[in-house]
Amino acid sequence: MQEKETIAALSTGKGNAALAIIRISGKKTFEILAKCLKPEKRFLSSKEKEIHLYQFYNNKNLKTIDEITAIKYASPRSFTGEDMMEIICHGGEIVVEEIVSCLLKEGITLAEKGEFTKRAFLNGKINLLKAEAIGQIIQSNSRKQYGVAMEAYGGKGEKKLFKWKEKIKRILVDCEAKIEFPEEDDIIGGKKEYTNKIKDIYKDIEKEIKNRKKIKTVENGISIPIIGIANAGKSTLFNKIIGFERVLVHHEEGTTRDAVSEEVIIGGERIKIIDTAGLSETKDLVEKMGIEKTWDNINKSTSIIWVTQANKELHEKEKEILQAVKKDKILGIISKKDLNNGKKKVKTLKEMKIPYIVVSLINDDEREKILIFVKKHVEKIINKEETENGIICTKRQEEIILRMMNKIKNISEKAEVLGEEIISHELRLILNDIAEYVGEIKNEDIINEIFNQFCIGK
Amino acid sequence: MQEKETIAALSTGKGNAALAIIRISGKKTFEILAKCLKPEKRFLSSKEKEIHLYQFYNNKNLKTIDEITAIKYASPRSFTGEDMMEIICHGGEIVVEEIVSCLLKEGITLAEKGEFTKRAFLNGKINLLKAEAIGQIIQSNSRKQYGVAMEAYGGKGEKKLFKWKEKIKRILVDCEAKIEFPEEDDIIGGKKEYTNKIKDIYKDIEKEIKNRKKIKTVENGISIPIIGIANAGKSTLFNKIIGFERVLVHHEEGTTRDAVSEEVIIGGERIKIIDTAGLSETKDLVEKMGIEKTWDNINKSTSIIWVTQANKELHEKEKEILQAVKKDKILGIISKKDLNNGKKKVKTLKEMKIPYIVVSLINDDEREKILIFVKKHVEKIINKEETENGIICTKRQEEIILRMMNKIKNISEKAEVLGEEIISHELRLILNDIAEYVGEIKNEDIINEIFNQFCIGK
Repeated sequence: MQEKETIAALSTGKGNAALAIIRISGKKTFEILAKCLKPEKRFLSSKEKEIHLYQFYNNKNLKTIDEITAIKYASPRSFTGEDMMEIICHGGEIVVEEIVSCLLKEGITLAEKGEFTKRAFLNGKINLLKAEAIGQIIQSNSRKQYGVAMEAYGGKGEKKLFKWKEKIKRILVDCEAKIEFPEEDDIIGGKKEYTNKIKDIYKDIEKEIKNRKKIKTVENGISIPIIGIANAGKSTLFNKIIGFERVLVHHEEGTTRDAVSEEVIIGGERIKIIDTAGLSETKDLVEKMGIEKTWDNINKSTSIIWVTQANKELHEKEKEILQAVKKDKILGIISKKDLNNGKKKVKTLKEMKIPYIVVSLINDDEREKILIFVKKHVEKIINKEETENGIICTKRQEEIILRMMNKIKNISEKAEVLGEEIISHELRLILNDIAEYVGEIKNEDIINEIFNQFCIGK
Repeated sequence: MQEKETIAALSTGKGNAALAIIRISGKKTFEILAKCLKPEKRFLSSKEKEIHLYQFYNNKNLKTIDEITAIKYASPRSFTGEDMMEIICHGGEIVVEEIVSCLLKEGITLAEKGEFTKRAFLNGKINLLKAEAIGQIIQSNSRKQYGVAMEAYGGKGEKKLFKWKEKIKRILVDCEAKIEFPEEDDIIGGKKEYTNKIKDIYKDIEKEIKNRKKIKTVENGISIPIIGIANAGKSTLFNKIIGFERVLVHHEEGTTRDAVSEEVIIGGERIKIIDTAGLSETKDLVEKMGIEKTWDNINKSTSIIWVTQANKELHEKEKEILQAVKKDKILGIISKKDLNNGKKKVKTLKEMKIPYIVVSLINDDEREKILIFVKKHVEKIINKEETENGIICTKRQEEIILRMMNKIKNISEKAEVLGEEIISHELRLILNDIAEYVGEIKNEDIINEIFNQFCIGK
């Protein structure tokens, strides 16, 4: 283990809350904490992994900062592998600031992003894939992404890479035997035999890339913009779904210039609902920008809610949307049924096979109906995308696997014409990729880049 | 202890972070957790106040939700006095959601605001004053407010109230002795004697009310609006203090319609800097509202930054501010020294004894100068307000103390003419106030109101 500074950071979410955790790691952890915790005797005699109550005090002015609980973890039996403490204090921002600034005065350094996990990795407590999985578990925006990360955390990626490595090593042995004993086909097996093995690995890798693509579509969570012409009831509908009066709703045209969005949980899924600018003819530059943004939202989202008034004819701009967007992406909502039954529009949507409901947004009871409508649609998307969770959970991993795939594709396609020397060279390069993937090759820049994507306190 | 539902809640701050704590309290805590934690054997054999590593899994589909650590607290040796668990999980929002929803499916109820602390209070683990202090420690916006809360947490209020109670009880004994033995002045002491004692208590209570008033001025943190006429450089100055480009800055008049604010730490104090709408003549309704808000900000704040251009004459509206605001509240900043040396305005401010600096806001180096200028001023305010931390840390407490003060004032002023019966009656009412203050009288509505001001998870 290298001699490093002792670090500390708030490891829980920001903002006032009941509790907060401050983590401390490094050689001087216990020595410094002994100066800050009362009763000192209790701290000194406390055992590892036991939680005890202390006064955390400023040993410069002897004032108590907070009553806390704290847990000792002795090296190497800690997350980082170093001596560590977890302090659970009251979760007020000022309390946390006071405790951290007290620790800094005692000679502790503020941890950098991901520094705890980086130390855990550098000290051999976790491998790179597990470290990356932790980052993904914390940052995941959808259940799918989180599922992939949890399986990666469990070692799925490692196992698969190990399997590939063993297979490639065996092929390499065959291949190199052929270089040394070019005539003994009967002992070693023909070229055909190992190129088939290479093709099997290629298929396996290709499957992972496909899985990754599917997962990427839901990885960043589901977002559904509400689309319609000005005054169709978009903001009222938005508020109904969100559940409270969030956006200014009034009857002048074009009030929602900027897209406003809120996240809601519908059917256990986190869904971002976006209120957009009405699609209408306009010369106002700001409104034009709003409309451009609306189209941007339509193109980026997996689905849209298309809202239209029961009491008005189908507008040119409304037709435009129905034509531009794939039918299975559209959720039709016909509003203002209190003014008109909306027969004509119902007919249009039926003919186009677009699912729809007819509602009155001034009616409070309709919220449930709308939510169920959205929920059913979301379940359909999720199930459609339901697929085996692949092993790839970060961009770095995806890039390496792609690189490997291209190499192996090249070998498998040209095996007949390539000499054994070239094949064995390429296979060795793939083994290198695998070593990089699982973190056996430690490039400091890459390592720093990976942990820089973490939050502080992790 | 009453039979209550088993509750759970996220107790740390929201948003993705390295770690999060989920608290569970109630009779079924261990029974339910045994169903969610693997290895079960480890959980069942784990001792109180030891932290162990588990898989938290969904026992419906047997999928692992997260790898967590957890601590057992057995009744009555827990915060709430009930059986309790603290789960430390990865701090991703989805992880937390999954774990909590799993607990809810197992029959646990989501905790209400302050419900953990309320149970601690109802189970006699902490008294009301300590419970209120916890709430204040978490919510405090300034070091001062936090200091008061910490002393309250340490029992300062309780001790003082007990002292008052004992004194009043002794006076009451004297007073009631006089009712029973009206002639025995020589044994009991004269009326004068106990009215003097009452006056002493009055002085003591009055001091607390005065302390409270002083603390209230800094309690909500220091806020400093930046005031000036349109185009004086308010937003540029704001950005300079905040340290990044936050507000749209351009050269048309009147761009900051709404007040924008950011909190910065200057000299260890959290200060809210407010960018305001320029004070100019306008007929635009929205701008008028902005200007009204600016005046509102001037009146509410303890200080203002008055920014003016070196190269322009003193504007009528600028004079208006200098006249309307107390001189020791004003921080003068003369901007655009690159265009003019600002001699005239320097002279004006010197004459008015208003501290000032002359800067160029296009110059990046001037940030430090501005910060030091603000810091010095803030230190002056803080030191001016430096006073003994009183015992009163909530509005409820303030109201009761005020009520007590009025009663005791009344007695001490009219003691000569009031009969002993009335005095003793009034003293008994004050004892009642004290009992209410420290929570000996438990009114359910009041209790609910107190804990409703807490956050969820506390």
